Amino acid sequence: MPYYIGDVIKDSRKLIARTPEKFEETGIRVRLNTRVEGIEAERGEVLLAKGERLAYDVLVMGTGAEATLPDMPGTRQDGVFTLKNLRDGINIKEYIKESGCRRAVIVGAGFIAMEMSEALTTIGLETSIVYRGELPVKKWDPVFSGMVLEELTRNGVSFISHNSPIAIEKHSTGLCLVTGAGTVQADIIIFALGVRPNIRLAREAGLAIGESGAIKVDPSQHTSREEIFSVGDCCESYHRVSKQWTHIPLGDMANKQGRVAGRTIAGYPMIFPGVVGAQSFKVFGLEVAMTGIDEKEAQKSGYTPESTIIWGSPVARSMNEGQKLGLKLIADRGSGMLLGAQAAGHSGAVSRINILSACLWSGMGLDEIGYMDLAYSPPFSGAWDMIHTAAQILGKKL
Amino acid sequence: MPYYIGDVIKDSRKLIARTPEKFEETGIRVRLNTRVEGIEAERGEVLLAKGERLAYDVLVMGTGAEATLPDMPGTRQDGVFTLKNLRDGINIKEYIKESGCRRAVIVGAGFIAMEMSEALTTIGLETSIVYRGELPVKKWDPVFSGMVLEELTRNGVSFISHNSPIAIEKHSTGLCLVTGAGTVQADIIIFALGVRPNIRLAREAGLAIGESGAIKVDPSQHTSREEIFSVGDCCESYHRVSKQWTHIPLGDMANKQGRVAGRTIAGYPMIFPGVVGAQSFKVFGLEVAMTGIDEKEAQKSGYTPESTIIWGSPVARSMNEGQKLGLKLIADRGSGMLLGAQAAGHSGAVSRINILSACLWSGMGLDEIGYMDLAYSPPFSGAWDMIHTAAQILGKKL
Repeated sequence: MPYYIGDVIKDSRKLIARTPEKFEETGIRVRLNTRVEGIEAERGEVLLAKGERLAYDVLVMGTGAEATLPDMPGTRQDGVFTLKNLRDGINIKEYIKESGCRRAVIVGAGFIAMEMSEALTTIGLETSIVYRGELPVKKWDPVFSGMVLEELTRNGVSFISHNSPIAIEKHSTGLCLVTGAGTVQADIIIFALGVRPNIRLAREAGLAIGESGAIKVDPSQHTSREEIFSVGDCCESYHRVSKQWTHIPLGDMANKQGRVAGRTIAGYPMIFPGVVGAQSFKVFGLEVAMTGIDEKEAQKSGYTPESTIIWGSPVARSMNEGQKLGLKLIADRGSGMLLGAQAAGHSGAVSRINILSACLWSGMGLDEIGYMDLAYSPPFSGAWDMIHTAAQILGKKL
Repeated sequence: MPYYIGDVIKDSRKLIARTPEKFEETGIRVRLNTRVEGIEAERGEVLLAKGERLAYDVLVMGTGAEATLPDMPGTRQDGVFTLKNLRDGINIKEYIKESGCRRAVIVGAGFIAMEMSEALTTIGLETSIVYRGELPVKKWDPVFSGMVLEELTRNGVSFISHNSPIAIEKHSTGLCLVTGAGTVQADIIIFALGVRPNIRLAREAGLAIGESGAIKVDPSQHTSREEIFSVGDCCESYHRVSKQWTHIPLGDMANKQGRVAGRTIAGYPMIFPGVVGAQSFKVFGLEVAMTGIDEKEAQKSGYTPESTIIWGSPVARSMNEGQKLGLKLIADRGSGMLLGAQAAGHSGAVSRINILSACLWSGMGLDEIGYMDLAYSPPFSGAWDMIHTAAQILGKKL
């Protein structure tokens, strides 16, 4: 009989409460709030608290990832949070409500920080982002990060750059984030510094860990032991463009890997075909998206990258009411293949990046992308879409 | 010295006026309002009025297509229009303004008819569509055509089905469209019955005409004579899915073919890689799009089509405010390859169809599409996008 161990986090509390029951109906025993202390892989047993053991034939490790909290004084007190799962979200909401927060500080400037800054501003909090670097969302080209910064500022979010937190102090007036450059007052502080895969159990069980620091898996989600599978934020994914195994912890991949492992275990073997690194976020009125790899990753993967950025209209120019879209393409000088793309604008960024993700998926070159057939209609693009134009311009630079 | 003969239709009158001048600057002679009477291909000469002849080494035929006007009494009078080019658009606008039209009738129910019904309703005209069939935009599945009909009705457009026009009469109260089933009063009548390629000159010059009725070309846009090229709405395009040469007259293809012919003539030979039939339109608040081929075309092309329609949310369900998106996929039972897709909804239809166009372009199968990496973020899709879900459901049916 299969077991399901760990947190079941779903859309709402109602679902959380119902999930065990749903599983039980299908003959699956669910044990929530049950901590796994270790895995004895040779014996095929999972160790629970108080010496209890569960035998398994097949084990799936979905241990996820953990939000990074810096090692500094004051992070373990009321009003200081990380945000990784639904429970964190509920805790933050309740704390804001109960303690009447007015000022929020977010440490970090990745896309969780961007989404949080919008959410907190929208419910009326005076919100600041504290970041050690110059610009937010540094995975994107600085021109796009600059657009994000403008959007934050336009919406009243303070962006405090070049500041690394050293400690959090509790004063009578609230919390105080001490940085190398000064202090920032707050009623709530949220750390959004990314995540680390939870691999302790896997490592202790002797499973191979990849260079990315996440659990090594094969395309059917087997770990280095055939009877142990791993899926989601704790394991690696094969990147179809860089040809490397990477750790890109995103919800859609976790879903797909879960399905692949499930089918394989159930006797309908399947391959997880990998990722191209497609991702997107919204911050206030701005769409920001990317796919594939950037110049630095391209170089590491043995390509000779060349890139271009163009600015244009997400719809036909005659129908444009001031919307501007930026699109960057990165391609390999040797082969003419597309390697990656980034986009930002008030509309049309995600749709372009998704088209280009499909192009990356099948390994298309700029020649083809420049003349590919898209569903032209003035409310949705020009007769030459920005994708065509960018591919042609970059093609000439190769 | 190259010549440019014919109408130069651009975005605005100003551009029309300027274009000859712009061409002259680059050493190209432009002769507008110059009718070509014939082509003497063996002599390499174009015949103009009054016996004038122009010699050529290379000739490009961009004779376009002509809006269909039925052969019936009363179509050649004031207030009766077709809509194919900018001049037609200007004429219609001026007529409405000058004669104080209140009631418009559109004959036909393709996507030009849909766009016109929105435009006319928006400027305050009481608008009716008269159509011989049951539902508008019959190239789409009836469920999507039904959504279009609802959108028309919701916005006050009358859809008069099962009516074929027989004549137009002029009464003291305005125009009267007589149909097999009755009469419809109007101040302006617009025929939107599709277009026919203008091939008279080509045929008389002995050029090969394809089965589709348009000028036969090769992938570099040569006609059956190497020195004569043809591009745009008058010639055929290679359909990458049906593997047939077809006549799909759309502005984006015309643009691309023009570029291919131009480069080839200039000594930088290029191939027009064909089309997948991607197209879209907007009618009021509805996005409607398709790509590839439908079941009937698939059967004709030797495939064994299977299809599915799913209904879902264009964004994550938790963020959806009542938007519904319908997505139909058509695939080949034998190979599992995607053959076509259709979508309609208040948002998200065109973006899905464009992703699927890129999939069709490179010949992807449902297995891959069902697990393809897209830029997931709740404001833009679910973790499983509707594309994934539809591909998986259809995959199980094969």
